[in-house]
Amino acid sequence: MQSDDRRELAQQLRVDTVRAPSVTGSGHPTSGMSAAELMAVLLDGYLHYDFSAPDNPLNDHLIFSKGHATPLLYALYKAAGAIDDDELMTYRLRGSRLEGHPTPVLPWVDVGTGSLGQGLPFGVGIALAGKRLDRLPYRVWVLCGDSEMAEGSVWEAFERAAYEQLDHLTAIIDVNRLGQRGPTQYEWDTDVYRRRAEAFGWHAVEVDGHDVDAVDGAYAEAVATPGKPTVIIARTVKGKGVSAVENVGGQHGKAIADVDAAIAELGGARDIGVSVSAPTGNGKPHVFETGSGELPTWNVGEKVATRGAYGAALAALGTVRGDVVALDGEVSNSTMSEKFKHAHPERFFEMYIAEQQMIAAAVGMAARGWVPFASTFSAFTSRAYDFVRMAAVSRASIRVTGSHAGVEIGQDGPSQMGLEDIAAYRAIHGSTVLYPADANATAKLVAAMADRAGVSYLRTTRGATPVIHEPDADITIGGSAILTSSDDDVVTICAAGITVHEALRAAETLAGDGVSVRVIDCYSIKPLDADTVREAVAATGGRAVTVEDHRAEGGLGDAVLDALADSGVCSRVRKLAVRTMPGSATSAEQLADAGIDATAIAAAVRDLARKA
Amino acid sequence: MQSDDRRELAQQLRVDTVRAPSVTGSGHPTSGMSAAELMAVLLDGYLHYDFSAPDNPLNDHLIFSKGHATPLLYALYKAAGAIDDDELMTYRLRGSRLEGHPTPVLPWVDVGTGSLGQGLPFGVGIALAGKRLDRLPYRVWVLCGDSEMAEGSVWEAFERAAYEQLDHLTAIIDVNRLGQRGPTQYEWDTDVYRRRAEAFGWHAVEVDGHDVDAVDGAYAEAVATPGKPTVIIARTVKGKGVSAVENVGGQHGKAIADVDAAIAELGGARDIGVSVSAPTGNGKPHVFETGSGELPTWNVGEKVATRGAYGAALAALGTVRGDVVALDGEVSNSTMSEKFKHAHPERFFEMYIAEQQMIAAAVGMAARGWVPFASTFSAFTSRAYDFVRMAAVSRASIRVTGSHAGVEIGQDGPSQMGLEDIAAYRAIHGSTVLYPADANATAKLVAAMADRAGVSYLRTTRGATPVIHEPDADITIGGSAILTSSDDDVVTICAAGITVHEALRAAETLAGDGVSVRVIDCYSIKPLDADTVREAVAATGGRAVTVEDHRAEGGLGDAVLDALADSGVCSRVRKLAVRTMPGSATSAEQLADAGIDATAIAAAVRDLARKA
Repeated sequence: MQSDDRRELAQQLRVDTVRAPSVTGSGHPTSGMSAAELMAVLLDGYLHYDFSAPDNPLNDHLIFSKGHATPLLYALYKAAGAIDDDELMTYRLRGSRLEGHPTPVLPWVDVGTGSLGQGLPFGVGIALAGKRLDRLPYRVWVLCGDSEMAEGSVWEAFERAAYEQLDHLTAIIDVNRLGQRGPTQYEWDTDVYRRRAEAFGWHAVEVDGHDVDAVDGAYAEAVATPGKPTVIIARTVKGKGVSAVENVGGQHGKAIADVDAAIAELGGARDIGVSVSAPTGNGKPHVFETGSGELPTWNVGEKVATRGAYGAALAALGTVRGDVVALDGEVSNSTMSEKFKHAHPERFFEMYIAEQQMIAAAVGMAARGWVPFASTFSAFTSRAYDFVRMAAVSRASIRVTGSHAGVEIGQDGPSQMGLEDIAAYRAIHGSTVLYPADANATAKLVAAMADRAGVSYLRTTRGATPVIHEPDADITIGGSAILTSSDDDVVTICAAGITVHEALRAAETLAGDGVSVRVIDCYSIKPLDADTVREAVAATGGRAVTVEDHRAEGGLGDAVLDALADSGVCSRVRKLAVRTMPGSATSAEQLADAGIDATAIAAAVRDLARKA
Repeated sequence: MQSDDRRELAQQLRVDTVRAPSVTGSGHPTSGMSAAELMAVLLDGYLHYDFSAPDNPLNDHLIFSKGHATPLLYALYKAAGAIDDDELMTYRLRGSRLEGHPTPVLPWVDVGTGSLGQGLPFGVGIALAGKRLDRLPYRVWVLCGDSEMAEGSVWEAFERAAYEQLDHLTAIIDVNRLGQRGPTQYEWDTDVYRRRAEAFGWHAVEVDGHDVDAVDGAYAEAVATPGKPTVIIARTVKGKGVSAVENVGGQHGKAIADVDAAIAELGGARDIGVSVSAPTGNGKPHVFETGSGELPTWNVGEKVATRGAYGAALAALGTVRGDVVALDGEVSNSTMSEKFKHAHPERFFEMYIAEQQMIAAAVGMAARGWVPFASTFSAFTSRAYDFVRMAAVSRASIRVTGSHAGVEIGQDGPSQMGLEDIAAYRAIHGSTVLYPADANATAKLVAAMADRAGVSYLRTTRGATPVIHEPDADITIGGSAILTSSDDDVVTICAAGITVHEALRAAETLAGDGVSVRVIDCYSIKPLDADTVREAVAATGGRAVTVEDHRAEGGLGDAVLDALADSGVCSRVRKLAVRTMPGSATSAEQLADAGIDATAIAAAVRDLARKA
């Protein structure tokens, strides 16, 4: 297109950006109007995308990190012929795939955005996949808002992208000066962003975001700059083109009051279609060589840390599956993902201590069809909780492993103890939460996670524990294992991970006193094997003890209560969990002090057995 | 001290840094040894601190953001005479206050650290308190590791500190080149850190961290630099002074194998005491003027959004209490904390879209005795979850308000919906979780939060709902309100927030059909009014429906189940919660689609009433 045509296209995008929010009287038109030229020039001149084949691996990727600017995004889709005007006018209606913020319900959307500061980190993940996994020349374009530059996650992304020399990644900052409730910190001082971006190793271009020729030049410069990502810092005007809202405060997230007047001021409706360039060539994603191999197994009675089993299993899985990749937050010698790194260095991603970018990269890689496993200490998975939440909104299948769970870690103290992770991950939509007690169970669950849709979380233990499951035991997501059972059982003990071993010790002590208990290894906390739990509790007179190295809220105990809640089993359940703030002590002391060791379990069983 | 004496002091610090971890064979000596000169010079020459009076408001603040370097921190305390050698040698033992990572169990520790990238943001909070609240000249010194510079939260802190011109804040980066599992990204390229710090508006000084005179000069420069914070970027050697570990990989987090040899190499034990300069003068923290006033109240039947009531109540509370301060993540016109901002601008802190720094600042202010309320969308409180977790470890009393809870928000879609927040906050140690259904309850709970220890979380609703509680209703943390009750009740409905209104509508419908239900407003989810819930469920034949605008895991339903678990009440509880991934729709449509509206509640009650 000529420059004039691009200007017309931008005005059309503005018209549609005004119209769509008028359907429900909600949305963020002014946040899209500032970026109309930026996106018009991109769509016409630089984006390589086959809208009829969103699965084409050669397609570029366009991410709206400022996810609230959906009216503009959908206006682009309409201009590209991907949706028609009727669909545009379903914006934000019940059942429409044109949601208030973009989600992969739409085939052209890779990741869900709308929690600010996440689109760029997701884009870094896709760009990493492009360079190191797919090995395809697609480009990644991310439209950012100026307000979201305050999020630390954005700077994690800047760092990672520069360090990895992602020169096929371009960020476009729409510096429209106005945030939700007022001016941004730096308003139109685009130099601030330039200095920071350059200090983080990016090539930066400052541009008038409404000058289509200048914008074209900036994109050309981005494409031509090797060895580093480029950021285009575009000075723009929020609400541009409609005097009632142009550069006016208090207009964020509000539909335009007088739509007809706005459309008239924008020059009326147009019907410009853009023939977006499809990617050329027929490159295919790189396929990593695989070999034959089997999951590791261990003999019953061997002492192995489940974190070690995780590393060994992941490495073995990587040998037979070329799509499995691993990321770690600079603790691979603790999570033991280093075993994968040594076996498959090309597919290992060192993310340093930047857990948000780590999870975001996993989401980006998943969007490209890879099978990412990300690991750090269970305590530090909490750092990326909003990214995990958005992974679910992104319909991403990612796997997170949190090592060093619970008070069991011992002397390092509470800052290093994951005690809230089960609650946090259980609450994620569509999630899977696993906490194996031994190495054999761990290995089988790692393999199962690779095929699991959604967010899967595996919790591993620091110290070595005895292998209790036979190498050929039936360990599955949604399963459980009854470890002790007799007709005389008076109480069911539901345990997971480290507390399984305490429960077995308690069972032994109790057996010596003639008290028989049924111990269930609830290694699959979500989905829980509810049928087995219900049957066991019913068989033991409704009496159950749950015991977990985790806070009392939202963990295994609550999962067991949920299984019993509407079952008709009249139950009495005692929850043992960590209810104090630990200090430093040995692992055994910690378990005792928290009241979740064998002694505490046995005491709870004895007390409960005395009840009706 | 003369330079030679400072060198000797540094060697003593190293000796103790080696000795303490030898007690349990765990700890991070090498991470402290790199910073011995940096801390020796600070302790002797620049820190103003009265170790006999840690509550002296004029004291400086020293934060080890690299919290694993506790052996060095405790060696400092010993050199300052705050602890003796016997106590030093209790390091990491059960019951010792010298934990593996610092916590405020020690009177000289302001905040818990050990989750990297948090100490500097906490320090920014204290520095903000010093400048804008206490208005005292104390300085804040934060020792950072080089690895943790990868955390985005660090850059949130850099931004905030520069923007607020915190020239009494000094960060010291101990660039020892080696992270946990290998070299850092930039190793000894200290220019990288300098460029970034300068781009973020800081004064930066590069220095040889083992040259006591150079270090002294750097501190002097920091103190003399007005208008901006200073970062001292110190090139150091990990494990410095002991050849077995000096600049050697694989030595992170490991006690020194041969302690005697190490001590000998360091020149043996010394017994140097430092007379740390106490702060001079007798300034007192600023006291904000207060006035008389009362909490706002509303008439029953008025339609008010609880977020609006939050803002109004907080503003009123600020009028009568000068210690109450507010922070917001650039959404004060949505959370309605802007009402506080307009009433008390001096005590309002705009944190922009940087939720981690927002929570960290609240923790820092709480460490100085202020009563912070931080607010953003409930969905985005998840961004700072690790900081909330560490707030509990820090024994901080902070209040967080998450607005726009649940699917009730309507068209904006899932990225903006807080659906995991109750689970996340319930799992925090010592937390309080509140979710009022109306304006009067909101106002009373806001006032109660101000006096509440620990982390308190308040969840507010976007839309306006009718006031249901009388202005003088008894609304307390740990309380509840029975809204409908008769001897004929067959089912108890436990609801909170928006679902209280749906439950009341369901009760009305059911009453028309001759089905009587007991509706409880469980506005205090943690602590839950367990007695009232148990009595009600027992009185309604063990039948209960829980209904919440939140995921099914870890929320109100699980809290109710917990109250019943070990109570002896034989119950059948049906949990209604959000089990799908919402899209965009109106508020009423969302509640219907999620199965948590009046219709769904009534259906659940009818079905349950048919059960035994």
